[in-house]
Amino acid sequence: MPVQFDPAPAVVDLVRRTEALVADVALPAETAHRGSAHDAPEELRRTLQEAARRAGVFAPHADTRFGGLGLDLRDRAPVFEAAGYSLFGPLALNCAAPDEGNMHLLERVASDAQQQRYLRPLVSGETRSCFAMTEPAPGAGSDPRALTTTARRTSAGWLLNGHKWFITGARGAAFAIVMARTSGEPGSPGGATMFLVDTDTPGLRHVRDLDCLDESMFGGHAELLLTDVEVGEDAVLGEVDRGFEHAQVRLGPARLTHCMRWLGTARRAADVAADRALTRQAFGARLGDLGMVQQHLADNEIDIEASRALVLRACWDLDTGAPAAQITSITKTFVAEAVNRVVDRSLQVCGALGISGDAPLARLYREVRPFRIYDGPSETHRWAIARRVLRAAERREGTRADGVHP
Amino acid sequence: MPVQFDPAPAVVDLVRRTEALVADVALPAETAHRGSAHDAPEELRRTLQEAARRAGVFAPHADTRFGGLGLDLRDRAPVFEAAGYSLFGPLALNCAAPDEGNMHLLERVASDAQQQRYLRPLVSGETRSCFAMTEPAPGAGSDPRALTTTARRTSAGWLLNGHKWFITGARGAAFAIVMARTSGEPGSPGGATMFLVDTDTPGLRHVRDLDCLDESMFGGHAELLLTDVEVGEDAVLGEVDRGFEHAQVRLGPARLTHCMRWLGTARRAADVAADRALTRQAFGARLGDLGMVQQHLADNEIDIEASRALVLRACWDLDTGAPAAQITSITKTFVAEAVNRVVDRSLQVCGALGISGDAPLARLYREVRPFRIYDGPSETHRWAIARRVLRAAERREGTRADGVHP
Amino acid sequence: MPVQFDPAPAVVDLVRRTEALVADVALPAETAHRGSAHDAPEELRRTLQEAARRAGVFAPHADTRFGGLGLDLRDRAPVFEAAGYSLFGPLALNCAAPDEGNMHLLERVASDAQQQRYLRPLVSGETRSCFAMTEPAPGAGSDPRALTTTARRTSAGWLLNGHKWFITGARGAAFAIVMARTSGEPGSPGGATMFLVDTDTPGLRHVRDLDCLDESMFGGHAELLLTDVEVGEDAVLGEVDRGFEHAQVRLGPARLTHCMRWLGTARRAADVAADRALTRQAFGARLGDLGMVQQHLADNEIDIEASRALVLRACWDLDTGAPAAQITSITKTFVAEAVNRVVDRSLQVCGALGISGDAPLARLYREVRPFRIYDGPSETHRWAIARRVLRAAERREGTRADGVHP
Amino acid sequence: MPVQFDPAPAVVDLVRRTEALVADVALPAETAHRGSAHDAPEELRRTLQEAARRAGVFAPHADTRFGGLGLDLRDRAPVFEAAGYSLFGPLALNCAAPDEGNMHLLERVASDAQQQRYLRPLVSGETRSCFAMTEPAPGAGSDPRALTTTARRTSAGWLLNGHKWFITGARGAAFAIVMARTSGEPGSPGGATMFLVDTDTPGLRHVRDLDCLDESMFGGHAELLLTDVEVGEDAVLGEVDRGFEHAQVRLGPARLTHCMRWLGTARRAADVAADRALTRQAFGARLGDLGMVQQHLADNEIDIEASRALVLRACWDLDTGAPAAQITSITKTFVAEAVNRVVDRSLQVCGALGISGDAPLARLYREVRPFRIYDGPSETHRWAIARRVLRAAERREGTRADGVHP
Repeated sequence: MPVQFDPAPAVVDLVRRTEALVADVALPAETAHRGSAHDAPEELRRTLQEAARRAGVFAPHADTRFGGLGLDLRDRAPVFEAAGYSLFGPLALNCAAPDEGNMHLLERVASDAQQQRYLRPLVSGETRSCFAMTEPAPGAGSDPRALTTTARRTSAGWLLNGHKWFITGARGAAFAIVMARTSGEPGSPGGATMFLVDTDTPGLRHVRDLDCLDESMFGGHAELLLTDVEVGEDAVLGEVDRGFEHAQVRLGPARLTHCMRWLGTARRAADVAADRALTRQAFGARLGDLGMVQQHLADNEIDIEASRALVLRACWDLDTGAPAAQITSITKTFVAEAVNRVVDRSLQVCGALGISGDAPLARLYREVRPFRIYDGPSETHRWAIARRVLRAAERREGTRADGVHP
Repeated sequence: MPVQFDPAPAVVDLVRRTEALVADVALPAETAHRGSAHDAPEELRRTLQEAARRAGVFAPHADTRFGGLGLDLRDRAPVFEAAGYSLFGPLALNCAAPDEGNMHLLERVASDAQQQRYLRPLVSGETRSCFAMTEPAPGAGSDPRALTTTARRTSAGWLLNGHKWFITGARGAAFAIVMARTSGEPGSPGGATMFLVDTDTPGLRHVRDLDCLDESMFGGHAELLLTDVEVGEDAVLGEVDRGFEHAQVRLGPARLTHCMRWLGTARRAADVAADRALTRQAFGARLGDLGMVQQHLADNEIDIEASRALVLRACWDLDTGAPAAQITSITKTFVAEAVNRVVDRSLQVCGALGISGDAPLARLYREVRPFRIYDGPSETHRWAIARRVLRAAERREGTRADGVHP
Repeated sequence: MPVQFDPAPAVVDLVRRTEALVADVALPAETAHRGSAHDAPEELRRTLQEAARRAGVFAPHADTRFGGLGLDLRDRAPVFEAAGYSLFGPLALNCAAPDEGNMHLLERVASDAQQQRYLRPLVSGETRSCFAMTEPAPGAGSDPRALTTTARRTSAGWLLNGHKWFITGARGAAFAIVMARTSGEPGSPGGATMFLVDTDTPGLRHVRDLDCLDESMFGGHAELLLTDVEVGEDAVLGEVDRGFEHAQVRLGPARLTHCMRWLGTARRAADVAADRALTRQAFGARLGDLGMVQQHLADNEIDIEASRALVLRACWDLDTGAPAAQITSITKTFVAEAVNRVVDRSLQVCGALGISGDAPLARLYREVRPFRIYDGPSETHRWAIARRVLRAAERREGTRADGVHP
Repeated sequence: MPVQFDPAPAVVDLVRRTEALVADVALPAETAHRGSAHDAPEELRRTLQEAARRAGVFAPHADTRFGGLGLDLRDRAPVFEAAGYSLFGPLALNCAAPDEGNMHLLERVASDAQQQRYLRPLVSGETRSCFAMTEPAPGAGSDPRALTTTARRTSAGWLLNGHKWFITGARGAAFAIVMARTSGEPGSPGGATMFLVDTDTPGLRHVRDLDCLDESMFGGHAELLLTDVEVGEDAVLGEVDRGFEHAQVRLGPARLTHCMRWLGTARRAADVAADRALTRQAFGARLGDLGMVQQHLADNEIDIEASRALVLRACWDLDTGAPAAQITSITKTFVAEAVNRVVDRSLQVCGALGISGDAPLARLYREVRPFRIYDGPSETHRWAIARRVLRAAERREGTRADGVHP
């Protein structure tokens, strides 16, 4: 079967309906809230999701068993990009981080009972969730092995203690997936376990919402404290001591869906810049007739098309079960940087207007910067990529003459 | 006289005192206001400036005749950089934009009477001012010749009408320097005149403050409307129809002082990143022991030192009256981009902490982005630089054999 | 049909055989000639091509009617990349520029008689060809409309006069495809015609071979002079005055096949660097354990994977007849720059060894630089890309509310 | 004393005479040899240096005691840049690498007798020299501590054994400064000693000249073998076991003089590109009227001016004896990369002409690439820069409150 790129007509149709929803509902709502969802009311979320349900584009990624549209990753790509055109689009489709990644994780790792209790209402939009992994220094960050939160086995189940930080969507979430150390020491690569913890469990405290550069994620980023939080045996998600492994299940696709959504942001920024270049006059010419502006516009397209092509490539590997750690790292790193370049150039094309809140660029500029850090900073991915390159070189040694002139 | 770089001991002393003031007064105030001065109370300004006066570092750039310290541009460079280490430092020293540039302009172009009335209280910190040049599209922006605001001669003086936009420091300013067209059409290179307009003059309306990416400039950025604003003949600053020319007097030094202050911001960001790299552990090592982090730290130093060297070079040319249009364009373009790179890298080194308000990086990230647009976007400067290169090439033609192999 | 990426097993097999041929035959020959084919003997070409024929990988792109393997563009991609791993690989497979592009053109535009006379021996490797389009300044270069070579109709056919420059593969070619102006003036967009001219036609003079940065193209780059070259009516390739149009038939695929081959060069360079990083010690560590070296290795992978994904995307559009001008321009620009970055980084990783002829990097460094200029410099492509962006923005106007906050 | 930039009139005059010599003598000679000096005859060197002597610009850097003009580093900067405008200019002035650095070293470290025997004829141009430090892997390269060549004390003096590689100017040199290990093991930071070795000493064998990307250094880059080379006690340059320390004496200034000369190369490339942009037409406009070409021209100026400013800054520190390790590393890294960018852009502006030998760009492109590796690759310098940043951060700890929000 030769390489082929076009999605099925049903997916194309889904994309068109998502575009319409974004234009008619998500963008106006975003403008009304100046792009900030950190403090947005639950009412906003309900309204947006109801519109998406009516448009038939709700939960496109979730399994049909739980009420989703069941798209594989390749088909999600154009839909999520269309949703990401507005900062509020993914919220409308219920495919925003961290819920979307959590649904993926629960579909694959949770027990039936856990799926009924946690996954079903999450897919339907009845509840929200958070993923409580990262910790303040010197705990788990880019290096998850530094995990310091502990879960100690008790007669009744587990006792959790720890400090979590930068937990997206925590305020208002119904439950948290908490990563805690069940064996080993901070720094050791194993011994983590995931727990499903209702947020009203005694001892789980929302300390504060962080003041952040980005503000478009519903529920914000919070600091949580776990003090003798008791959970039952049935709170274990997956298997004990296999938390890091289970996290990988979530990570690969989550990286790609981040790419898809933020590609929509980039597309939006590039469109705004092109519109501006088309209409604004300077130095006796249309802005878009000036070579340096044209370079910005062209580089935007190059970055976007290369990103899209990489995303599809990585989706294909994940969908078909091919080894995909290298391609998802590559894709995440490239797309995160490309998206930032696109928004930066687009803002520059818009000049002072781009700095002001009269255009969306300043907001988008703030929103995309964290992408180079979230889900592994570029440096961590580059390190992982290079190590795989070196291992491949090691395998080549002995099996072939190298390409060096003798 | 050979090239030499070290400032006089008195200047070094001034730098040390400025650093102390910044550490003791400006940084704490900045932290208390989360780096935002758009809505800061007048009280804050008074307090900061009183501290600077006591430290003997107030108004270092202003002429001694008006109460300043009378530093030339070369000596200002390290002092302003030290002040810029805090977003609130320049405000404390009364050397923030736009007042600092306006003082420079008034020193050179204003009449004695105008200097007494407008310059003296501005230098002393009694008043603030703004420079009302830019207009909403399709008016004056990167291309000042698009100026649409008009001043029509009346029997009593002048009648001003127009729409101004992105006027920094307008809210609370005692007067505005208004650029208006007195002859020619929008697009024509001549025919502009500057007017000194008290902000309580009837017809001058503060429409709104813009919501902006940056928020550290006291008084914010405003939209102004001028409707039949009447001013007398004595409101003309400099000569009629020579407004663009007079603006050049302001622009060259203003570009450099922007560079100096924002270099301080870059230095701050680089220090925060280095401190973090020193203490944070990841992957079994100090962050600062990882090569990709080292690269960020090193590139920060390279950008900062190259910026400093260029600034001094450009200051020398302006101080000695050498032709400096090319070197100031080069310096402004390089430094604006270098400062952005430094802050971006520093934020990246700090990871999620850098995204959060728990470190100053996210704030600095927002503050430096506009520098690539303010005082002429990089593209406009590059265009001007290239045209001078081509004119130089034209002059070479005929006067020498070129470097091309025959 | 969902997006899919994997080539058919027969293509995978072809790639493996090409890799073996490159390792066993092409790389040793390349080393023996130090990567330079400008002055290589015809004997070398015969030997390489005979080996490719035996390996069953000869002329993979040519139509089966003429003795090729008939691969579409998507299937060519991995085969050509494998061939390009050695500078002499494409020559072996008879898929090097300019012959490969000329075959494509003749397949689509030539008459049956012309195909028998010119295409058949070209595909079989019996002859070589050149494409005589570019001219010395002020003639046709990045701007083909500047074409100055003329063809004047005579009673017997056409009389060609002109000066051609940088004509790849001209020395030793059996025929040239000459672009000449048959109407209009230099600068006008129409009026060009292509002519098939035997290189032994009187009046067609090979003036000299150019001394060039790159040296791996068989037959070098030549300067040609056409003085009253007489050809018959049957020399017209395609239709009179539609030469620019026909050139487009050649250009799209030719750009992609350039990308494929040079991606092989990049892959080679990256492998050499990885091998070096694996074995060389410095500062008490393996070179590959140093973060800045890891960054180079990782960025190489990112550039290569993004390039591959873009190439496949563009091939898909060309293969399926979708509008592909934008995606081929984007792909050519990105890949040309990515390939240069990869080779540059790889050379840097190898240090002084990379500068010396003891490794292939210095040679590869010379060979890939022209790719950013050949087939349209990056600037010309960016200009074309931006104009399409602006036209798309124009179409959007009126049909939808833009993304700008009101 | 305030910062000041202009050189004394005598230096300006020297620059003018150097420019004239370069235009009249060096550039024509360079063109005649196509920029390659690896195989150039001794006669060429004699002729060029005789012309420089007549012009009064010979050996501007050498101490007046030995026949030089005695310029300090700041005054050398513009003179060396002027010389570097031609690849053969530094050879003419006898200020090319490695002789120029060796003169500097001998002036500071050699005994009187050594100065009379080796330095005097080197300054006068009677002899040439080489600096034999680097070794093939796994020996001394970017990491000099890997030094494997040994010197063993004998009754009569010393016995040297080792393998040297990439020894610039070795063919035809009268003597070599050989770095050999006199104590410690490869990898240890001490125990190196420098020896002055006449190249006709038995056992010192010139194995071969390396085939290299760059070819403008007179005498090329060679591989040397030392087999039981006997030298007397008086061959020790400086003190035993202090070779690495002495090498530092050479390195700081040598890095800067490399920068100066290669800045001349960059200036040349930028001029060629500007000339081309002035005259070449494309797409109905002068090349220089196209924005993307203007961007290249502007970025060239920015890179050159930033480089010049950094070089002067670093010269000032070295001339005045201030700590200069950080600023010379910064300057070397920035300038090496800037020079490469300038030449790359200039070549791009010239299009296919730039690829061909009909313009000097292809040659310059080859010549400047090694600068990012010679005298320490950029990565090694960045590593050293970062370590100094971290040490400075360490010193700050405890002495001041940091800039991080509490």
